Amino acid sequence: MANHKIGIPFVISGPSGSGKGMIVREILKRDSENYRLSVSATTRQPRPGERDGVEYYFISRKEFEDRIAAGEVLEYTEYCGNYYGTLKSEVENLTEAGINVILEIEIVGGNNVRRIRPDTLLFFVIPPDADTLRKRLRGRGTESEESIEKRLARAEKEILLAKDYDYLIVNETDRIGAAADEIMQIVEAEKHRMRYHFDRVAHLFDPADPVGEQ
Amino acid sequence: MANHKIGIPFVISGPSGSGKGMIVREILKRDSENYRLSVSATTRQPRPGERDGVEYYFISRKEFEDRIAAGEVLEYTEYCGNYYGTLKSEVENLTEAGINVILEIEIVGGNNVRRIRPDTLLFFVIPPDADTLRKRLRGRGTESEESIEKRLARAEKEILLAKDYDYLIVNETDRIGAAADEIMQIVEAEKHRMRYHFDRVAHLFDPADPVGEQ
Repeated sequence: MANHKIGIPFVISGPSGSGKGMIVREILKRDSENYRLSVSATTRQPRPGERDGVEYYFISRKEFEDRIAAGEVLEYTEYCGNYYGTLKSEVENLTEAGINVILEIEIVGGNNVRRIRPDTLLFFVIPPDADTLRKRLRGRGTESEESIEKRLARAEKEILLAKDYDYLIVNETDRIGAAADEIMQIVEAEKHRMRYHFDRVAHLFDPADPVGEQ
Repeated sequence: MANHKIGIPFVISGPSGSGKGMIVREILKRDSENYRLSVSATTRQPRPGERDGVEYYFISRKEFEDRIAAGEVLEYTEYCGNYYGTLKSEVENLTEAGINVILEIEIVGGNNVRRIRPDTLLFFVIPPDADTLRKRLRGRGTESEESIEKRLARAEKEILLAKDYDYLIVNETDRIGAAADEIMQIVEAEKHRMRYHFDRVAHLFDPADPVGEQ
Protein backbone atom coordinates (compact mmCIF):
# COMPACT_ATOMS: atom_id res chain seq x y z
CA MET A 1 0.00 0.00 0.00
CA ALA A 2 3.06 2.24 0.10
CA ASN A 3 2.29 3.45 -3.41
CA HIS A 4 -1.19 4.67 -2.53
CA LYS A 5 -0.30 8.24 -1.59
CA ILE A 6 -2.36 9.68 1.21
CA GLY A 7 -1.77 13.01 2.97
CA ILE A 8 -2.78 13.30 6.62
CA PRO A 9 -3.36 16.69 8.27
CA PHE A 10 -2.32 16.87 11.90
CA VAL A 11 -2.22 19.40 14.69
CA ILE A 12 0.61 19.66 17.20
CA SER A 13 -0.23 21.64 20.32
CA GLY A 14 1.23 21.88 23.77
CA PRO A 15 2.15 24.37 26.45
CA SER A 16 4.95 26.84 25.87
CA GLY A 17 8.13 24.99 26.86
CA SER A 18 6.80 21.57 25.81
CA GLY A 19 9.25 21.58 22.91
CA LYS A 20 6.60 21.19 20.20
CA GLY A 21 8.47 23.56 17.87
CA MET A 22 11.62 21.45 18.08
CA ILE A 23 9.63 18.31 17.35
CA VAL A 24 8.10 19.92 14.26
CA ARG A 25 11.55 20.92 12.99
CA GLU A 26 12.81 17.39 13.64
CA ILE A 27 9.96 15.86 11.62
CA LEU A 28 10.64 18.22 8.70
CA LYS A 29 14.34 17.41 8.88
CA ARG A 30 13.62 13.67 8.76
CA ASP A 31 11.22 13.78 5.82
CA SER A 32 10.79 17.12 4.12
CA GLU A 33 9.32 15.43 1.06
CA ASN A 34 6.25 13.93 2.72
CA TYR A 35 5.78 16.36 5.60
CA ARG A 36 5.13 20.09 5.28
CA LEU A 37 4.33 22.84 7.76
CA SER A 38 1.11 24.63 6.87
CA VAL A 39 1.61 28.27 5.82
CA SER A 40 -0.77 30.53 7.76
CA ALA A 41 -2.80 33.42 6.41
CA THR A 42 -2.69 36.85 8.06
CA THR A 43 -4.20 40.29 7.63
CA ARG A 44 -1.09 42.08 8.86
CA GLN A 45 1.16 43.89 6.39
CA PRO A 46 4.12 41.91 5.04
CA ARG A 47 7.48 42.95 6.51
CA PRO A 48 10.42 43.63 4.20
CA GLY A 49 11.56 40.38 2.62
CA GLU A 50 8.40 38.41 3.46
CA ARG A 51 6.87 36.69 0.44
CA ASP A 52 3.20 35.87 -0.08
CA GLY A 53 2.67 32.11 0.24
CA VAL A 54 6.05 31.53 1.91
CA GLU A 55 6.08 33.15 5.36
CA TYR A 56 2.33 33.84 5.19
CA TYR A 57 -0.53 34.29 2.80
CA PHE A 58 -1.20 38.02 3.04
CA ILE A 59 -4.88 38.72 2.58
CA SER A 60 -7.21 41.61 3.37
CA ARG A 61 -9.37 41.79 6.46
CA LYS A 62 -12.46 41.63 4.27
CA GLU A 63 -11.28 38.45 2.54
CA PHE A 64 -10.30 36.82 5.84
CA GLU A 65 -13.73 37.53 7.33
CA ASP A 66 -15.51 36.33 4.19
CA ARG A 67 -13.56 33.11 4.36
CA ILE A 68 -14.39 32.61 8.04
CA ALA A 69 -18.08 33.11 7.23
CA ALA A 70 -17.83 30.56 4.40
CA GLY A 71 -16.27 27.92 6.69
CA GLU A 72 -13.01 28.13 4.75
CA VAL A 73 -10.78 28.89 7.74
CA LEU A 74 -9.83 25.87 9.84
CA GLU A 75 -8.82 27.95 12.88
CA TYR A 76 -7.84 31.53 13.56
CA THR A 77 -6.96 33.96 16.28
CA GLU A 78 -6.81 37.75 16.52
CA TYR A 79 -3.57 39.27 17.81
CA CYS A 80 -2.73 42.98 17.98
CA GLY A 81 -5.65 43.78 15.71
CA ASN A 82 -4.73 41.28 12.99
CA TYR A 83 -6.10 37.87 12.09
CA TYR A 84 -3.83 34.82 11.87
CA GLY A 85 -5.22 31.49 10.79
CA THR A 86 -5.11 28.37 8.65
CA LEU A 87 -6.93 28.30 5.32
CA LYS A 88 -8.83 25.15 4.47
CA SER A 89 -7.50 25.42 0.91
CA GLU A 90 -3.87 25.33 2.10
CA VAL A 91 -4.40 21.99 3.84
CA GLU A 92 -6.42 20.62 0.90
CA ASN A 93 -3.76 21.48 -1.67
CA LEU A 94 -1.11 19.61 0.31
CA THR A 95 -3.10 16.53 1.37
CA GLU A 96 -4.43 16.09 -2.18
CA ALA A 97 -0.81 15.93 -3.31
CA GLY A 98 -0.23 13.16 -0.74
CA ILE A 99 1.69 15.36 1.68
CA ASN A 100 1.18 15.23 5.46
CA VAL A 101 0.44 18.73 6.76
CA ILE A 102 1.56 19.91 10.18
CA LEU A 103 -0.46 22.61 11.94
CA GLU A 104 1.43 23.97 14.95
CA ILE A 105 -1.38 25.80 16.69
CA GLU A 106 -2.88 26.71 20.06
CA ILE A 107 -4.89 24.12 21.96
CA VAL A 108 -8.17 25.96 21.46
CA GLY A 109 -7.73 25.76 17.68
CA GLY A 110 -7.30 21.99 17.43
CA ASN A 111 -10.88 20.96 17.90
CA ASN A 112 -12.02 23.63 15.52
CA VAL A 113 -9.80 22.24 12.78
CA ARG A 114 -11.28 18.81 13.19
CA ARG A 115 -14.83 20.12 12.98
CA ILE A 116 -14.06 21.24 9.41
CA ARG A 117 -11.52 18.50 8.49
CA PRO A 118 -12.61 15.35 10.35
CA ASP A 119 -9.57 13.39 9.15
CA THR A 120 -7.23 15.63 11.19
CA LEU A 121 -5.19 13.98 13.96
CA LEU A 122 -4.62 15.97 17.15
CA PHE A 123 -1.34 15.53 19.02
CA PHE A 124 -0.69 17.04 22.41
CA VAL A 125 2.90 17.44 23.58
CA ILE A 126 3.82 17.68 27.25
CA PRO A 127 7.13 17.75 29.08
CA PRO A 128 7.80 14.78 31.44
CA ASP A 129 6.89 16.98 34.43
CA ALA A 130 6.16 20.56 35.49
CA ASP A 131 9.71 21.10 36.78
CA THR A 132 11.14 20.37 33.34
CA LEU A 133 8.70 22.86 31.84
CA ARG A 134 9.86 25.49 34.34
CA LYS A 135 13.52 24.75 33.61
CA ARG A 136 13.00 24.97 29.85
CA LEU A 137 11.24 28.32 30.13
CA ARG A 138 14.02 29.66 32.41
CA GLY A 139 16.67 28.19 30.14
CA ARG A 140 15.58 30.42 27.30
CA GLY A 141 16.98 33.31 29.34
CA THR A 142 14.67 35.69 27.53
CA GLU A 143 11.87 35.99 30.04
CA SER A 144 11.36 37.46 33.50
CA GLU A 145 10.41 35.17 36.39
CA GLU A 146 7.03 36.88 36.40
CA SER A 147 6.42 36.13 32.74
CA ILE A 148 7.46 32.52 33.28
CA GLU A 149 5.01 32.13 36.15
CA LYS A 150 2.30 33.61 33.91
CA ARG A 151 3.06 31.07 31.19
CA LEU A 152 2.96 28.24 33.71
CA ALA A 153 -0.39 29.37 35.11
CA ARG A 154 -1.74 29.55 31.59
CA ALA A 155 -0.36 26.10 30.73
CA GLU A 156 -1.99 24.65 33.84
CA LYS A 157 -5.40 25.87 32.66
CA GLU A 158 -4.98 25.15 28.96
CA ILE A 159 -3.75 21.64 29.46
CA LEU A 160 -7.22 20.45 30.51
CA LEU A 161 -8.46 21.22 27.00
CA ALA A 162 -6.21 18.42 25.78
CA LYS A 163 -8.85 15.89 26.83
CA ASP A 164 -10.33 16.00 23.33
CA TYR A 165 -6.97 15.46 21.64
CA ASP A 166 -6.25 12.08 20.05
CA TYR A 167 -2.71 11.35 21.15
CA LEU A 168 -0.36 12.28 23.95
CA ILE A 169 3.34 12.66 23.21
CA VAL A 170 5.63 13.00 26.22
CA ASN A 171 8.66 15.00 25.15
CA GLU A 172 11.41 13.64 27.39
CA THR A 173 14.51 15.80 27.69
CA ASP A 174 17.10 15.04 25.00
CA ARG A 175 14.74 12.69 23.20
CA ILE A 176 13.36 14.94 20.44
CA GLY A 177 14.06 12.18 17.90
CA ALA A 178 11.91 9.69 19.80
CA ALA A 179 8.99 12.12 19.97
CA ALA A 180 9.27 12.86 16.23
CA ASP A 181 9.36 9.11 15.49
CA GLU A 182 6.28 8.47 17.59
CA ILE A 183 4.29 11.10 15.73
CA MET A 184 5.48 9.95 12.31
CA GLN A 185 4.63 6.32 13.12
CA ILE A 186 1.14 7.28 14.22
CA VAL A 187 0.64 9.31 11.03
CA GLU A 188 1.84 6.38 8.90
CA ALA A 189 -0.43 3.97 10.82
CA GLU A 190 -3.36 6.27 10.06
CA LYS A 191 -2.85 5.69 6.34
CA HIS A 192 -4.11 2.13 6.78
CA ARG A 193 -7.54 3.40 7.85
CA MET A 194 -10.31 1.57 6.01
CA ARG A 195 -11.91 4.83 4.88
CA TYR A 196 -8.96 5.48 2.57
CA HIS A 197 -9.10 2.01 1.02
CA PHE A 198 -12.62 0.71 1.04
CA ASP A 199 -12.86 1.14 -2.74
CA ARG A 200 -10.08 -1.36 -3.11
CA VAL A 201 -11.90 -3.87 -0.91
CA ALA A 202 -15.23 -3.35 -2.66
CA HIS A 203 -13.64 -3.88 -6.08
CA LEU A 204 -11.36 -6.76 -5.14
CA PHE A 205 -13.42 -9.20 -7.18
CA ASP A 206 -13.94 -6.99 -10.22
CA PRO A 207 -12.44 -8.99 -13.08
CA ALA A 208 -11.89 -6.25 -15.66
CA ASP A 209 -10.33 -3.31 -13.92
CA PRO A 210 -8.48 -4.12 -10.71
CA VAL A 211 -8.37 -1.16 -8.35
CA GLY A 212 -5.59 -0.51 -5.91
CA GLU A 213 -2.08 0.12 -7.12
CA GLN A 214 -1.76 3.53 -8.70
CA MET B 1 5.75 6.16 28.04
CA ALA B 2 7.13 2.71 27.26
CA ASN B 3 6.83 1.79 30.93
CA HIS B 4 3.13 2.57 31.08
CA LYS B 5 1.81 -0.89 30.22
CA ILE B 6 -1.35 -0.89 28.18
CA GLY B 7 -2.99 -3.93 26.56
CA ILE B 8 -4.93 -3.41 23.34
CA PRO B 9 -7.54 -5.93 22.15
CA PHE B 10 -7.72 -6.33 18.39
CA VAL B 11 -9.64 -8.36 15.86
CA ILE B 12 -8.11 -9.82 12.72
CA SER B 13 -10.61 -10.87 10.07
CA GLY B 14 -10.45 -11.56 6.38
CA PRO B 15 -11.66 -13.98 3.75
CA SER B 16 -10.43 -17.54 3.72
CA GLY B 17 -7.14 -17.46 1.80
CA SER B 18 -6.25 -13.92 2.93
CA GLY B 19 -3.46 -15.37 5.06
CA LYS B 20 -4.72 -13.91 8.35
CA GLY B 21 -3.76 -17.05 10.26
CA MET B 22 -0.15 -16.79 9.08
CA ILE B 23 -0.03 -13.13 10.09
CA VAL B 24 -1.28 -13.99 13.57
CA ARG B 25 1.40 -16.68 13.95
CA GLU B 26 4.03 -14.21 12.75
CA ILE B 27 2.98 -11.61 15.34
CA LEU B 28 3.14 -14.21 18.13
CA LYS B 29 6.55 -15.32 16.92
CA ARG B 30 7.85 -11.76 16.97
CA ASP B 31 6.59 -10.85 20.43
CA SER B 32 5.01 -13.67 22.42
CA GLU B 33 5.45 -11.69 25.63
CA ASN B 34 3.24 -8.75 24.73
CA TYR B 35 0.86 -10.41 22.25
CA ARG B 36 -1.42 -13.32 23.01
CA LEU B 37 -4.14 -15.12 21.03
CA SER B 38 -7.45 -15.13 22.86
CA VAL B 39 -8.59 -18.59 23.99
CA SER B 40 -12.20 -19.21 22.91
CA ALA B 41 -14.95 -20.79 24.94
CA THR B 42 -17.01 -23.67 23.56
CA THR B 43 -19.86 -25.94 24.60
CA ARG B 44 -18.51 -28.94 22.73
CA GLN B 45 -16.91 -31.81 24.60
CA PRO B 46 -13.12 -31.68 24.99
CA ARG B 47 -11.25 -34.12 22.74
CA PRO B 48 -8.56 -36.35 24.22
CA GLY B 49 -5.59 -34.24 25.24
CA GLU B 50 -7.45 -30.91 25.14
CA ARG B 51 -7.04 -28.89 28.32
CA ASP B 52 -9.52 -26.39 29.75
CA GLY B 53 -8.15 -22.87 29.32
CA VAL B 54 -5.52 -23.92 26.79
CA GLU B 55 -7.22 -25.07 23.58
CA TYR B 56 -10.60 -23.81 24.78
CA TYR B 57 -12.56 -22.95 27.86
CA PHE B 58 -15.04 -25.81 28.06
CA ILE B 59 -18.30 -24.62 29.54
CA SER B 60 -21.88 -25.90 29.60
CA ARG B 61 -24.57 -24.76 27.21
CA LYS B 62 -26.45 -23.21 30.12
CA GLU B 63 -23.43 -21.20 31.26
CA PHE B 64 -22.70 -20.03 27.70
CA GLU B 65 -26.27 -18.83 27.23
CA ASP B 66 -26.32 -17.13 30.63
CA ARG B 67 -23.14 -15.31 29.73
CA ILE B 68 -24.54 -14.20 26.38
CA ALA B 69 -27.62 -12.84 28.16
CA ALA B 70 -25.40 -10.98 30.64
CA GLY B 71 -23.39 -9.32 27.84
CA GLU B 72 -20.29 -11.26 28.88
CA VAL B 73 -19.63 -12.81 25.46
CA LEU B 74 -17.88 -10.52 22.97
CA GLU B 75 -18.89 -12.58 19.94
CA TYR B 76 -20.05 -16.12 19.27
CA THR B 77 -21.25 -18.45 16.59
CA GLU B 78 -23.07 -21.77 16.55
CA TYR B 79 -21.51 -24.60 14.58
CA CYS B 80 -22.69 -28.22 14.46
CA GLY B 81 -24.92 -27.63 17.46
CA ASN B 82 -22.20 -26.13 19.66
CA TYR B 83 -21.38 -22.57 20.65
CA TYR B 84 -17.94 -21.10 20.07
CA GLY B 85 -17.14 -17.60 21.25
CA THR B 86 -14.92 -15.11 23.06
CA LEU B 87 -15.51 -14.39 26.74
CA LYS B 88 -15.28 -10.79 27.83
CA SER B 89 -13.36 -11.95 30.93
CA GLU B 90 -10.64 -13.60 28.80
CA VAL B 91 -9.87 -10.32 27.06
CA GLU B 92 -10.08 -8.35 30.31
CA ASN B 93 -7.63 -10.60 32.14
CA LEU B 94 -5.04 -10.16 29.40
CA THR B 95 -5.43 -6.44 28.70
CA GLU B 96 -5.36 -5.64 32.41
CA ALA B 97 -1.99 -7.40 32.54
CA GLY B 98 -0.80 -5.09 29.73
CA ILE B 99 -0.97 -7.78 27.04
CA ASN B 100 -2.33 -7.14 23.54
CA VAL B 101 -5.02 -9.69 22.74
CA ILE B 102 -5.60 -11.02 19.23
CA LEU B 103 -9.07 -12.22 18.26
CA GLU B 104 -8.99 -14.11 14.98
CA ILE B 105 -12.68 -14.16 14.15
CA GLU B 106 -15.27 -13.96 11.38
CA ILE B 107 -16.14 -10.58 9.90
CA VAL B 108 -19.62 -10.57 11.38
CA GLY B 109 -18.17 -10.89 14.89
CA GLY B 110 -15.86 -7.87 14.75
CA ASN B 111 -18.42 -5.16 15.17
CA ASN B 112 -20.07 -7.08 17.97
CA VAL B 113 -16.81 -7.19 19.90
CA ARG B 114 -16.42 -3.46 19.66
CA ARG B 115 -19.95 -2.82 20.90
CA ILE B 116 -18.93 -4.45 24.20
CA ARG B 117 -15.22 -3.42 24.22
CA PRO B 118 -15.05 -0.01 22.49
CA ASP B 119 -11.24 0.07 22.70
CA THR B 120 -10.97 -2.88 20.29
CA LEU B 121 -9.20 -2.25 16.97
CA LEU B 122 -10.56 -4.03 13.90
CA PHE B 123 -8.13 -5.15 11.19
CA PHE B 124 -9.26 -6.53 7.87
CA VAL B 125 -6.79 -8.58 5.83
CA ILE B 126 -7.14 -8.98 2.07
CA PRO B 127 -4.91 -10.54 -0.58
CA PRO B 128 -3.52 -8.13 -3.22
CA ASP B 129 -6.16 -9.34 -5.71
CA ALA B 130 -8.83 -12.00 -6.27
CA ASP B 131 -6.50 -14.12 -8.43
CA THR B 132 -4.06 -14.47 -5.55
CA LEU B 133 -6.92 -15.52 -3.29
CA ARG B 134 -7.95 -18.17 -5.84
CA LYS B 135 -4.39 -19.42 -6.15
CA ARG B 136 -3.93 -19.64 -2.39
CA LEU B 137 -7.12 -21.63 -1.96
CA ARG B 138 -6.11 -23.98 -4.79
CA GLY B 139 -2.58 -24.23 -3.42
CA ARG B 140 -3.87 -25.83 -0.26
CA GLY B 141 -4.70 -28.85 -2.41
CA THR B 142 -7.31 -29.91 0.10
CA GLU B 143 -10.43 -28.59 -1.53
CA SER B 144 -12.51 -29.31 -4.61
CA GLU B 145 -12.91 -26.66 -7.29
CA GLU B 146 -16.56 -26.43 -6.26
CA SER B 147 -15.70 -25.77 -2.63
CA ILE B 148 -13.17 -23.13 -3.69
CA GLU B 149 -15.77 -21.35 -5.81
CA LYS B 150 -18.14 -21.44 -2.84
CA ARG B 151 -15.51 -19.84 -0.61
CA LEU B 152 -14.85 -17.16 -3.20
CA ALA B 153 -18.54 -16.36 -3.58
CA ARG B 154 -18.81 -16.11 0.19
CA ALA B 155 -15.72 -13.88 0.41
CA GLU B 156 -17.16 -11.58 -2.25
CA LYS B 157 -20.27 -11.02 -0.13
CA GLU B 158 -18.59 -10.90 3.28
CA ILE B 159 -15.95 -8.45 2.22
CA LEU B 160 -18.49 -5.62 2.04
CA LEU B 161 -18.97 -5.92 5.81
CA ALA B 162 -15.39 -4.71 6.20
CA LYS B 163 -16.58 -1.14 5.71
CA ASP B 164 -16.91 -0.75 9.48
CA TYR B 165 -13.44 -2.09 10.17
CA ASP B 166 -10.73 0.35 11.26
CA TYR B 167 -7.74 -0.70 9.21
CA LEU B 168 -7.00 -2.48 5.97
CA ILE B 169 -3.94 -4.70 5.72
CA VAL B 170 -3.03 -5.91 2.24
CA ASN B 171 -1.26 -9.22 2.61
CA GLU B 172 1.10 -9.23 -0.36
CA THR B 173 2.50 -12.61 -1.33
CA ASP B 174 5.73 -13.46 0.52
CA ARG B 175 5.42 -10.39 2.72
CA ILE B 176 3.91 -11.83 5.89
CA GLY B 177 6.54 -10.00 7.94
CA ALA B 178 5.50 -6.64 6.52
CA ALA B 179 1.83 -7.27 7.30
CA ALA B 180 2.68 -8.32 10.87
CA ASP B 181 4.83 -5.19 11.30
CA GLU B 182 2.04 -2.95 10.05
CA ILE B 183 -0.42 -4.36 12.55
CA MET B 184 2.05 -4.23 15.44
CA GLN B 185 2.95 -0.61 14.63
CA ILE B 186 -0.71 0.40 14.56
CA VAL B 187 -1.28 -1.35 17.91
CA GLU B 188 1.75 0.43 19.42
CA ALA B 189 0.56 3.78 18.02
CA GLU B 190 -2.80 3.20 19.68
CA LYS B 191 -1.11 3.18 23.08
CA HIS B 192 -0.48 6.91 22.74
CA ARG B 193 -4.23 7.61 22.72
CA MET B 194 -5.10 10.42 25.07
CA ARG B 195 -7.77 8.33 26.82
CA TYR B 196 -5.03 6.14 28.32
CA HIS B 197 -3.00 9.10 29.57
CA PHE B 198 -5.27 11.99 30.41
CA ASP B 199 -4.66 11.45 34.14
CA ARG B 200 -1.02 12.20 33.56
CA VAL B 201 -1.86 15.43 31.75
CA ALA B 202 -4.41 16.52 34.36
CA HIS B 203 -1.92 15.95 37.19
CA LEU B 204 1.15 17.37 35.48
CA PHE B 205 1.20 20.37 37.79
CA ASP B 206 0.50 18.52 41.03
CA PRO B 207 3.47 19.33 43.24
CA ALA B 208 3.32 16.50 45.79
CA ASP B 209 2.70 13.30 43.91
CA PRO B 210 3.83 13.36 40.29
CA VAL B 211 1.81 10.93 38.17
CA GLY B 212 3.19 9.15 35.17
CA GLU B 213 6.03 6.66 35.42
CA GLN B 214 4.92 3.49 37.11
